[in-house]
Amino acid sequence: MKAGDNFSRVFVVDEPVYSGFIQTFHDTNPLHTNDEFARSMGFKSKVMHGNILNGFISYFIGECLPQKNVFILTQEISYSNPVYIGDQLNFSATITEVHESVNVTDIKYKFSKTDGTKVAFGKIKIGLR
Amino acid sequence: MKAGDNFSRVFVVDEPVYSGFIQTFHDTNPLHTNDEFARSMGFKSKVMHGNILNGFISYFIGECLPQKNVFILTQEISYSNPVYIGDQLNFSATITEVHESVNVTDIKYKFSKTDGTKVAFGKIKIGLR
Repeated sequence: MKAGDNFSRVFVVDEPVYSGFIQTFHDTNPLHTNDEFARSMGFKSKVMHGNILNGFISYFIGECLPQKNVFILTQEISYSNPVYIGDQLNFSATITEVHESVNVTDIKYKFSKTDGTKVAFGKIKIGLR
Repeated sequence: MKAGDNFSRVFVVDEPVYSGFIQTFHDTNPLHTNDEFARSMGFKSKVMHGNILNGFISYFIGECLPQKNVFILTQEISYSNPVYIGDQLNFSATITEVHESVNVTDIKYKFSKTDGTKVAFGKIKIGLR
């Protein structure tokens, strides 16, 4: 991997992902489970958990990079817009810096909806061993 | 919620959490699934996915705060030490700042093992509506 390398991937927040997240982590906050409550907070309907996107990031780092001997050191994520059930997300990531002396690589990424709406963006620092 | 408020919680990275995370997000990188591979990278055995901790953070924000009308704006996490299957983690969080004019609250947190080893730490910015 070298600076400038790009990766992209499509992720869908479908029912199995949504239900799997809730069954695993038990976050049933009404924003995520109750359409009426979500609408009272100004959203279109129940909002998907932001940390579902961090699960997709785990998959990206673990499964989509050319090397398997990687592990995450730090992550940052900023949520720009809500994700709803069934949304298809275009994920794109770019290697921004490779610190060869310590085998650390910096990545920036974003998630967008198919209409171009930015959903989340951030940075990941990974180690290679 | 006001600056200085503390929250704590125990989370266990048990088999259902580990399996549920993999079934939901399909990150089967050998570091997380193969003890031999993990040992070749210098770890004791297969290492739990860091983003399992972000699932616990989802639960904390969604279920353990005194208010339900919350949503996450940004998150940062730094991983200090590996987590292994069965590890019990003490999670503690402190409200560091309340920005009343915009209903935004800053939180810092850490995860530690029962022997005191720090596992991860970071910051969360939440909105209230």
